[in-house]
Amino acid sequence: MFDVLKIRQDFPMLHHHTMQSHPLVYLDNAATTFKPQCVIDAVVRYYTDQTANVHRGDYEISYQVSEAYEKTREDVARFIHAQPKEIVFTAGASASLNLVAYGYGRKYLKAGDVILSTEAEHASNILPWFKVAEETGAQIEYIPLTEDGQLTLENFRQAMHESVKIVAVADITNVLGYVAPIEEMTRIAHERGAIVVCDGAQSVPHTPTDVQAWGVDFLAFSAHKMCGPTGVGVLYGKYELLQKTDPFMLGGGSNARFDMCGNILLKDAPYKFEAGTPNIEGVLGLQQAVRYLESIGMEQIQAYEHELKAYAIEKLKKLDNLILYNPTSPTGIIAFNVKDVFAQDAAGYLNSQGIAVRSGNHCAKILLNVLKTSETIRASLYFYNTKEDVDRFVQACSEITLENCVGLFF
Amino acid sequence: MFDVLKIRQDFPMLHHHTMQSHPLVYLDNAATTFKPQCVIDAVVRYYTDQTANVHRGDYEISYQVSEAYEKTREDVARFIHAQPKEIVFTAGASASLNLVAYGYGRKYLKAGDVILSTEAEHASNILPWFKVAEETGAQIEYIPLTEDGQLTLENFRQAMHESVKIVAVADITNVLGYVAPIEEMTRIAHERGAIVVCDGAQSVPHTPTDVQAWGVDFLAFSAHKMCGPTGVGVLYGKYELLQKTDPFMLGGGSNARFDMCGNILLKDAPYKFEAGTPNIEGVLGLQQAVRYLESIGMEQIQAYEHELKAYAIEKLKKLDNLILYNPTSPTGIIAFNVKDVFAQDAAGYLNSQGIAVRSGNHCAKILLNVLKTSETIRASLYFYNTKEDVDRFVQACSEITLENCVGLFF
Repeated sequence: MFDVLKIRQDFPMLHHHTMQSHPLVYLDNAATTFKPQCVIDAVVRYYTDQTANVHRGDYEISYQVSEAYEKTREDVARFIHAQPKEIVFTAGASASLNLVAYGYGRKYLKAGDVILSTEAEHASNILPWFKVAEETGAQIEYIPLTEDGQLTLENFRQAMHESVKIVAVADITNVLGYVAPIEEMTRIAHERGAIVVCDGAQSVPHTPTDVQAWGVDFLAFSAHKMCGPTGVGVLYGKYELLQKTDPFMLGGGSNARFDMCGNILLKDAPYKFEAGTPNIEGVLGLQQAVRYLESIGMEQIQAYEHELKAYAIEKLKKLDNLILYNPTSPTGIIAFNVKDVFAQDAAGYLNSQGIAVRSGNHCAKILLNVLKTSETIRASLYFYNTKEDVDRFVQACSEITLENCVGLFF
Repeated sequence: MFDVLKIRQDFPMLHHHTMQSHPLVYLDNAATTFKPQCVIDAVVRYYTDQTANVHRGDYEISYQVSEAYEKTREDVARFIHAQPKEIVFTAGASASLNLVAYGYGRKYLKAGDVILSTEAEHASNILPWFKVAEETGAQIEYIPLTEDGQLTLENFRQAMHESVKIVAVADITNVLGYVAPIEEMTRIAHERGAIVVCDGAQSVPHTPTDVQAWGVDFLAFSAHKMCGPTGVGVLYGKYELLQKTDPFMLGGGSNARFDMCGNILLKDAPYKFEAGTPNIEGVLGLQQAVRYLESIGMEQIQAYEHELKAYAIEKLKKLDNLILYNPTSPTGIIAFNVKDVFAQDAAGYLNSQGIAVRSGNHCAKILLNVLKTSETIRASLYFYNTKEDVDRFVQACSEITLENCVGLFF
């Protein structure tokens, strides 16, 4: 039974926090999420009881923390239906995507090859590919989006051709929250000899993830967008592809041996990718985040967010001062503007009412050409938000006028 | 007044912690260090009171945490005598060194150029250069070490020539703890047109650091080796060099704009290097670590560790079952073996007595050719260790025999 009030008790940030003298309504969950007490406890436990480096110690504490670190690989693998050896810990989704672009794309692409992406991608899943294209002579092509910014299977099918070697797309986009038909896309991509690199930063925290059912070749996501610490993320890769991928970073812990002539024998995946001391407490925090999300149930989280979004859209539609960009998207992201008011000014008004949202281009700077606006406001829900949060947000939106916003600054 | 007993109260890991039923003696500080309560509190404060992403929010909490994040740049800059804009936050010293190798070395080196290093380097300051050499056609050359593994100015001077473009050395080496004459080396390198990339992972936590006096061009170090969190490190670079350096990772936050044709306008340094959500709580923890170390005083820390090391060496020299590799090195690293006992077995015996040390090649796999041994045991001190720790360690060392170690396993 999904009990949001009980869930909220798990999050210190939701305990009577105020902003601008109002009770805080946090609707910036697509940027980062709050942490439940169990995650905080895991990090503190590392600092107070378990501090040691992993992998290379010869004593009890180091052995224990190494075990816990490796156990997290099993927990994350179970969470997305992968094998533990297919889980690489990185510094975040951006680092994961850079790793694939550098270690796989740069290694295997050549002039004439095509990387197929969309105009709705986050910078982290397009800029690394620009760099790969520049270095290899490969081309970037874009799957045309519908007028409202959606990726359809039909458009993907038409954009797909034999020169496409890599399809780089987000499962759920970060500005509009539309869901790509990733499973069918992957099937088609594989039929045409391409691999699929999926940016799961906005999907893994919000919906059940099954890399085996989806068939994606690589999947990147961040702990901090799913109740975990910042500075830690995951790259999932099919094992044979990980083995073929070069590490992005070299250093201690990732090699079996090397000599002064420059010969390096790397460890097998995933260890060859984890050079240097990893974010140990970050990984231990991620472990608790995964277990916490599992204890609630990703289906329940998805269903609740869907319901909350529908509730919000129904109310927002009645406000005639708003432009809604994605009323039909089935996820917790609401993209909008207030007529005649700059996005940042409107966000400033919401802040003055204790409501945290984000304005701007949301690191998806190409998409705004499609939407024909330079900026949007993004309110993004998570499973700890309530209908009361939505009511407060809708009420504040209804109050936004140019005069109100000007009043904040003068 | 340096009061080690008072200092120990600041570290939860030093509060009556036991290992194998003995009071813990932690001598693996070159691998990672314990965290004082103020660092733990900063991380917890982010989770309980300040959770938001940095840089891109339009609300009070995001604004406040962004300010604290940027303030850390000032604190770290002051700590090493740099300017805030010369401080890049990375995932750790390994990430910092890979950034320089990839973003500067790979960009500017060409066939015939030489990277001058030593056989005593940690993997993280040699493997990235192997990769750069492979891609650019540059060569790696090694400054000859003395028989006991030291880097002398005279040897450096002889090894230096006009083709050397990059000198990549550790200020203090991680196996033997010898101190390189970095200031004089940098002067000579600059006279010959080379830049100096310094691995400060073992020096910045233990000695006063002054990048202006040293003149080094790049300096890398990790927070977790200086009382801070794991998963966060620093790359210092002279500003004009940082501006000339390509980012290692691309993604959100590091670009001012980009378009669908692949044109990217990067932000200025240091921001262009910090793509994606950074390790926010890690940076805030590092801030407190720096302030904590400053409150004790790096001169005091250095002097105390020097005294403790001398105390240890004096006692260890009296044990006729030990081989000491670096009795004259002036820092807190003690490299040794027990005659006729494998390093790992001896470390296992020390563990059974509650003493945490590290055995192996310590990620410096070339050095062991110089020392003519396949592995060493490393005991590494920090300012919170005591003479009683040393006494316990020396006593346990004196007891190590092949029979004792065999007894642990059978």
